[in-house]
Amino acid sequence: MMDKLRSDSEKIIQDALATALPDNAVSAALAERTPVKGKTYLVAFGKAAWQMAEAAEKQLGDSLDAGICITKYQHVKGEIPHVQCYEAAHPVPDENGVKAAEKAIELVSSLTSEDEVIVLISGGGSALFESPLVPLNELQDITQQLLACGADITEINTIRKRLSKVKGGRFAELCAPAHVFAIILSDIIGDPLDMIASGPCTPDTSSCEDAIGIIRKYRIHLSEHAHALLKQETPKHLDNVETHVTGSVRQLCSAAMKTAEKLGYEPVFLTASLCCEARACGSFLSSIARDHIHDGKNLAYICGGETVVHITGKGLGGRNQEIALSAAEGISGLKHCAVFSVGSDGTDGPTDAAGGYADDTTSEKLAAMGIHIPAVLADNDSYHALKKTDGLIITGPTGTNVNDLSVLLIAGKEAA
Amino acid sequence: MMDKLRSDSEKIIQDALATALPDNAVSAALAERTPVKGKTYLVAFGKAAWQMAEAAEKQLGDSLDAGICITKYQHVKGEIPHVQCYEAAHPVPDENGVKAAEKAIELVSSLTSEDEVIVLISGGGSALFESPLVPLNELQDITQQLLACGADITEINTIRKRLSKVKGGRFAELCAPAHVFAIILSDIIGDPLDMIASGPCTPDTSSCEDAIGIIRKYRIHLSEHAHALLKQETPKHLDNVETHVTGSVRQLCSAAMKTAEKLGYEPVFLTASLCCEARACGSFLSSIARDHIHDGKNLAYICGGETVVHITGKGLGGRNQEIALSAAEGISGLKHCAVFSVGSDGTDGPTDAAGGYADDTTSEKLAAMGIHIPAVLADNDSYHALKKTDGLIITGPTGTNVNDLSVLLIAGKEAA
Repeated sequence: MMDKLRSDSEKIIQDALATALPDNAVSAALAERTPVKGKTYLVAFGKAAWQMAEAAEKQLGDSLDAGICITKYQHVKGEIPHVQCYEAAHPVPDENGVKAAEKAIELVSSLTSEDEVIVLISGGGSALFESPLVPLNELQDITQQLLACGADITEINTIRKRLSKVKGGRFAELCAPAHVFAIILSDIIGDPLDMIASGPCTPDTSSCEDAIGIIRKYRIHLSEHAHALLKQETPKHLDNVETHVTGSVRQLCSAAMKTAEKLGYEPVFLTASLCCEARACGSFLSSIARDHIHDGKNLAYICGGETVVHITGKGLGGRNQEIALSAAEGISGLKHCAVFSVGSDGTDGPTDAAGGYADDTTSEKLAAMGIHIPAVLADNDSYHALKKTDGLIITGPTGTNVNDLSVLLIAGKEAA
Repeated sequence: MMDKLRSDSEKIIQDALATALPDNAVSAALAERTPVKGKTYLVAFGKAAWQMAEAAEKQLGDSLDAGICITKYQHVKGEIPHVQCYEAAHPVPDENGVKAAEKAIELVSSLTSEDEVIVLISGGGSALFESPLVPLNELQDITQQLLACGADITEINTIRKRLSKVKGGRFAELCAPAHVFAIILSDIIGDPLDMIASGPCTPDTSSCEDAIGIIRKYRIHLSEHAHALLKQETPKHLDNVETHVTGSVRQLCSAAMKTAEKLGYEPVFLTASLCCEARACGSFLSSIARDHIHDGKNLAYICGGETVVHITGKGLGGRNQEIALSAAEGISGLKHCAVFSVGSDGTDGPTDAAGGYADDTTSEKLAAMGIHIPAVLADNDSYHALKKTDGLIITGPTGTNVNDLSVLLIAGKEAA
């Protein structure tokens, strides 16, 4: 039974991660597209831009007329037919990024209503796709001032959108009258479209009044030019844009549910927006296990999101490994169940593991080695404890980042 | 809608607490009893002993031949026909308690197999029902030594059961050959029967080897007499006992589910053994809300248990109030939902509130008053914040203590 729980976990992880991969996510979204009569262009930016552009080009082939791809240094993995690839700095934008963004603006600037721009957006796009209306160093100074005053990310974006040619829906406006088919690989919980890459193809919900209010609230020093820019409104409606959000943590959860169901579990979707302490998540899942282990059912409780860890020790670990290890304590002896948690990027904390796996025997096995879970958690050393119980999940870097997947599997049918 | 969520919450709390009241819990359990041919005796001990004994006597009337009730000082609320009431010290046992326990032992010492002893057990029974085999001060010294060495409660109980005439199943043994009908008002999560009041009517799962091992592990100093007692085994099987666990947190949850269903919600039972951080529970419930608010259903997610608070501030509050307040942040603007959490004893932390209530408007209302939830939580000042949004749940002391009830209500049907 323990082996089956482990192999079921591996299958669920494999299928969920595959769904979230940029290639598969792009293919799935493009399958819903109707080709246009005019020309087809591609603009991709963000940390996953190269994978997304490559997947799109494979599917579009010669129907793609031209394209531009902007990603992080060392992230271009080869040439893509029809597409010019550029590398630039992240998280602070640099001149190379700005130059590449100018190329993209040039590409889309004289299209007709029969043409289409496929825009592929991934995390990091805020820095990697930027064409500022003020000098780069002035933009950085304003951002620094806002950060120093404790402005939140929504407030910072409200200002930055107005200092940019492309953010806050303005890039889609530049593409008009061409149609925009935007595919967004979401890495922010709740998929707030105007936040991901600062929403270049999404109508802006903030107003000039908001922007001026923020500047006053924090007493930010601005040049006259920047001040004037804050008074220029961003687009509030964009009728040339069709948006597909893909590869989000919700899709990660959906894929996990599908596979769990195929494997004979009743899937119970709890949330895709988890944000509590990692060890509390483990505790909560094990509490659920204790009260459903005798239901006489095979159950899979599915959560997605991104938990937090407050580091108090000097050990090695990550939030997903802490979830599994803290659950191990609570499910100890509950025949039979398991909890696993995995980061979709394949990296959990500063470790080579993507996450952790624990079952009802993990705690006892550790105790027999003289290892006690509360002490391990206090030292944030989940990696070494899980390594000793074969509880590390190793996937290698996956090429995507759509938060984490945490699952409780209960094999209650055979126990009943 | 907000008014309905609030009034639905009140109804759920009222019904759940009523089910858990000692009187109702005892009545429900006694309803399942078949009267015996011989005599019927009653022995009640614990913090709720008086209420339980009174409820039992009302139901049994003159079929009750005699009884003994032992509770905390100031907890006897009047005379009970057929029942002698005693008051004693808690949490450290005193001579009055020991004398009363001796009376109970005397009462049950010469019964026949046609007789029955109804044993009513509630929290605090470990101290209130004790007849030690070593002098009281020696028992206290051993307990102190164990506590000082960091022994856990299971280890301490393993020792104490062997130093007692009544703990670890021994009281039921003393009642034999009479039948024992035990009603246990559980206040420990998971209902570990041998832990509640140190299990006077429950077979003991620990062994003499365990006891000796603990003494060696912590190098506890014992008299020769005490050492000899550790080698006397406790009962491992008791065939004269029928046990009814009642008023437990599971019943609290079941009652909440029934009322929620009557009010038009689909109840989803998560757990009755919650033990994570209070604010993480609030966060987790609000994460669930975010992903089910658009399900087009009215949903009630039900949790029971006892969360923990790590106090970092100087404010006023309790774990239930922290659950509600931390959920308030996560459900802000989610039309329409609410989270409430309530301690079944009617007291949450050092406050006059039983718990807290928050809905999707709470966070915004507080912000308008310049009150920000993260700051309030950092100061553990949930009481004052909830007071300002009419979010305190006041019930007064309920006379029971079966942990806490935490519920997320989603009114998604009308939104859809």
